[in-house]
Amino acid sequence: MEHLSVNEIHRRFEELDGWDMVNDGISKLFEFEDFRKAMEFVNKIAEESEKENHHPDITVSYSKVTLFLVTHSANGLTHKDFKLAKIIDQLV
Amino acid sequence: MEHLSVNEIHRRFEELDGWDMVNDGISKLFEFEDFRKAMEFVNKIAEESEKENHHPDITVSYSKVTLFLVTHSANGLTHKDFKLAKIIDQLV
Repeated sequence: MEHLSVNEIHRRFEELDGWDMVNDGISKLFEFEDFRKAMEFVNKIAEESEKENHHPDITVSYSKVTLFLVTHSANGLTHKDFKLAKIIDQLV
Repeated sequence: MEHLSVNEIHRRFEELDGWDMVNDGISKLFEFEDFRKAMEFVNKIAEESEKENHHPDITVSYSKVTLFLVTHSANGLTHKDFKLAKIIDQLV
Protein backbone atom coordinates (compact mmCIF):
# COMPACT_ATOMS: atom_id res chain seq x y z
CA MET A 1 0.00 0.00 0.00
CA GLU A 2 1.28 3.47 -0.92
CA HIS A 3 0.77 6.44 1.33
CA LEU A 4 -1.68 9.15 0.25
CA SER A 5 -0.64 12.21 -1.70
CA VAL A 6 -0.11 15.47 0.20
CA ASN A 7 -3.35 16.85 -1.26
CA GLU A 8 -5.31 13.78 -0.29
CA ILE A 9 -3.84 13.83 3.23
CA HIS A 10 -4.81 17.48 3.55
CA ARG A 11 -8.36 16.75 2.40
CA ARG A 12 -8.82 13.80 4.77
CA PHE A 13 -7.17 15.64 7.66
CA GLU A 14 -9.61 18.55 7.29
CA GLU A 15 -12.48 16.11 7.87
CA LEU A 16 -11.11 15.19 11.30
CA ASP A 17 -11.59 17.08 14.54
CA GLY A 18 -8.91 17.48 17.21
CA TRP A 19 -6.19 15.49 15.48
CA ASP A 20 -2.70 16.89 14.93
CA MET A 21 -0.04 16.10 12.39
CA VAL A 22 2.89 14.59 14.30
CA ASN A 23 5.92 13.41 12.38
CA ASP A 24 4.58 11.24 9.55
CA GLY A 25 1.30 10.44 11.25
CA ILE A 26 -1.68 11.90 13.11
CA SER A 27 -2.15 12.13 16.86
CA LYS A 28 -4.94 13.00 19.30
CA LEU A 29 -5.20 13.35 23.06
CA PHE A 30 -8.36 12.19 24.83
CA GLU A 31 -9.02 13.05 28.48
CA PHE A 32 -11.31 11.09 30.78
CA GLU A 33 -12.57 11.28 34.35
CA ASP A 34 -10.15 8.69 35.66
CA PHE A 35 -7.94 5.71 34.77
CA ARG A 36 -10.84 3.26 34.63
CA LYS A 37 -12.71 5.36 32.05
CA ALA A 38 -9.49 5.79 30.06
CA MET A 39 -8.99 2.02 29.99
CA GLU A 40 -12.58 1.42 28.88
CA PHE A 41 -11.84 3.65 25.89
CA VAL A 42 -8.55 1.85 25.21
CA ASN A 43 -10.33 -1.51 25.17
CA LYS A 44 -12.90 -0.22 22.70
CA ILE A 45 -10.06 1.02 20.49
CA ALA A 46 -8.37 -2.36 20.81
CA GLU A 47 -11.50 -4.14 19.61
CA GLU A 48 -11.96 -1.85 16.59
CA SER A 49 -8.23 -2.05 15.79
CA GLU A 50 -8.41 -5.81 15.61
CA LYS A 51 -11.45 -5.62 13.31
CA GLU A 52 -9.63 -3.15 11.02
CA ASN A 53 -6.33 -5.00 11.35
CA HIS A 54 -4.72 -1.62 11.98
CA HIS A 55 -3.41 -0.51 15.36
CA PRO A 56 -2.64 2.94 16.71
CA ASP A 57 0.14 3.50 19.20
CA ILE A 58 -1.71 4.01 22.47
CA THR A 59 -0.31 5.80 25.52
CA VAL A 60 -2.27 5.84 28.77
CA SER A 61 -1.18 8.28 31.45
CA TYR A 62 -3.77 7.90 34.21
CA SER A 63 -6.85 9.63 32.72
CA LYS A 64 -5.21 10.71 29.46
CA VAL A 65 -5.03 8.60 26.31
CA THR A 66 -2.81 9.69 23.43
CA LEU A 67 -3.14 7.96 20.08
CA PHE A 68 -0.77 7.99 17.14
CA LEU A 69 -1.72 6.63 13.74
CA VAL A 70 0.51 5.93 10.76
CA THR A 71 0.82 3.08 8.27
CA HIS A 72 4.35 1.81 8.86
CA SER A 73 4.32 -0.41 5.78
CA ALA A 74 3.57 2.68 3.63
CA ASN A 75 5.94 5.00 5.51
CA GLY A 76 3.10 7.46 5.87
CA LEU A 77 -0.62 8.06 6.11
CA THR A 78 -3.09 5.89 4.20
CA HIS A 79 -6.87 5.47 4.05
CA LYS A 80 -6.55 2.96 6.90
CA ASP A 81 -5.37 5.70 9.26
CA PHE A 82 -8.17 8.13 8.43
CA LYS A 83 -10.78 5.37 8.54
CA LEU A 84 -9.62 4.25 12.01
CA ALA A 85 -9.40 7.87 13.26
CA LYS A 86 -13.07 8.38 12.36
CA ILE A 87 -14.10 5.11 14.00
CA ILE A 88 -12.20 6.07 17.17
CA ASP A 89 -13.82 9.52 17.31
CA GLN A 90 -17.21 7.82 17.30
CA LEU A 91 -16.25 5.63 20.31
CA VAL A 92 -16.02 8.51 22.79
CA MET B 1 5.04 10.93 50.54
CA GLU B 2 8.75 11.68 50.04
CA HIS B 3 10.77 9.99 47.35
CA LEU B 4 13.37 7.42 48.38
CA SER B 5 17.01 8.29 49.00
CA VAL B 6 19.54 7.61 46.25
CA ASN B 7 20.94 4.67 48.24
CA GLU B 8 17.52 3.15 48.78
CA ILE B 9 16.62 3.62 45.10
CA HIS B 10 19.86 1.86 44.15
CA ARG B 11 19.13 -1.02 46.52
CA ARG B 12 15.54 -1.47 45.28
CA PHE B 13 16.54 -1.07 41.63
CA GLU B 14 19.11 -3.86 41.97
CA GLU B 15 16.30 -6.20 43.01
CA LEU B 16 14.52 -5.64 39.68
CA ASP B 17 15.22 -7.34 36.36
CA GLY B 18 15.07 -5.61 32.99
CA TRP B 19 14.03 -2.17 34.24
CA ASP B 20 15.93 0.98 33.27
CA MET B 21 16.30 4.32 34.97
CA VAL B 22 14.61 6.88 32.69
CA ASN B 23 14.44 10.51 33.80
CA ASP B 24 13.15 10.43 37.40
CA GLY B 25 11.48 7.03 37.09
CA ILE B 26 11.92 3.44 35.93
CA SER B 27 10.90 1.95 32.60
CA LYS B 28 10.61 -1.49 31.04
CA LEU B 29 9.73 -2.82 27.59
CA PHE B 30 7.73 -6.04 27.29
CA GLU B 31 7.29 -7.81 23.96
CA PHE B 32 4.46 -10.16 23.09
CA GLU B 33 3.37 -12.34 20.21
CA ASP B 34 0.79 -9.86 18.92
CA PHE B 35 -1.48 -6.94 19.83
CA ARG B 36 -4.07 -9.14 21.51
CA LYS B 37 -1.49 -10.65 23.91
CA ALA B 38 -0.09 -7.18 24.59
CA MET B 39 -3.57 -5.91 25.49
CA GLU B 40 -4.18 -8.87 27.79
CA PHE B 41 -1.05 -7.84 29.69
CA VAL B 42 -2.16 -4.19 29.75
CA ASN B 43 -5.51 -5.16 31.24
CA LYS B 44 -3.81 -7.20 33.96
CA ILE B 45 -1.62 -4.19 34.76
CA ALA B 46 -4.72 -1.97 34.83
CA GLU B 47 -6.37 -4.25 37.38
CA GLU B 48 -3.32 -4.34 39.66
CA SER B 49 -2.82 -0.58 39.27
CA GLU B 50 -6.33 0.07 40.51
CA LYS B 51 -5.75 -2.23 43.52
CA GLU B 52 -2.51 -0.41 44.36
CA ASN B 53 -3.98 3.00 43.51
CA HIS B 54 -0.82 3.64 41.52
CA HIS B 55 -0.69 3.76 37.73
CA PRO B 56 2.23 3.42 35.35
CA ASP B 57 2.29 5.27 32.05
CA ILE B 58 1.53 2.54 29.51
CA THR B 59 2.41 2.68 25.83
CA VAL B 60 1.19 -0.04 23.47
CA SER B 61 2.78 -0.23 20.04
CA TYR B 62 1.25 -3.32 18.44
CA SER B 63 2.99 -6.17 20.31
CA LYS B 64 5.24 -3.98 22.47
CA VAL B 65 4.25 -2.55 25.85
CA THR B 66 6.44 0.09 27.49
CA LEU B 67 5.84 1.03 31.10
CA PHE B 68 7.07 4.04 33.01
CA LEU B 69 6.76 4.31 36.79
CA VAL B 70 7.30 7.34 38.98
CA THR B 71 5.43 8.89 41.91
CA HIS B 72 4.44 12.32 40.59
CA SER B 73 3.33 13.57 44.01
CA ALA B 74 6.82 12.79 45.38
CA ASN B 75 8.68 14.05 42.31
CA GLY B 76 10.58 10.78 42.21
CA LEU B 77 10.64 7.08 43.02
CA THR B 78 8.90 5.71 46.10
CA HIS B 79 8.15 2.27 47.54
CA LYS B 80 4.90 2.33 45.52
CA ASP B 81 6.88 2.25 42.26
CA PHE B 82 9.08 -0.66 43.23
CA LYS B 83 6.15 -2.58 44.70
CA LEU B 84 4.15 -2.19 41.49
CA ALA B 85 7.18 -3.04 39.30
CA LYS B 86 7.53 -6.37 41.15
CA ILE B 87 3.82 -7.11 40.85
CA ILE B 88 3.93 -6.36 37.11
CA ASP B 89 6.94 -8.62 36.58
CA GLN B 90 4.94 -11.47 38.08
CA LEU B 91 2.06 -10.92 35.63
CA VAL B 92 4.02 -11.96 32.54
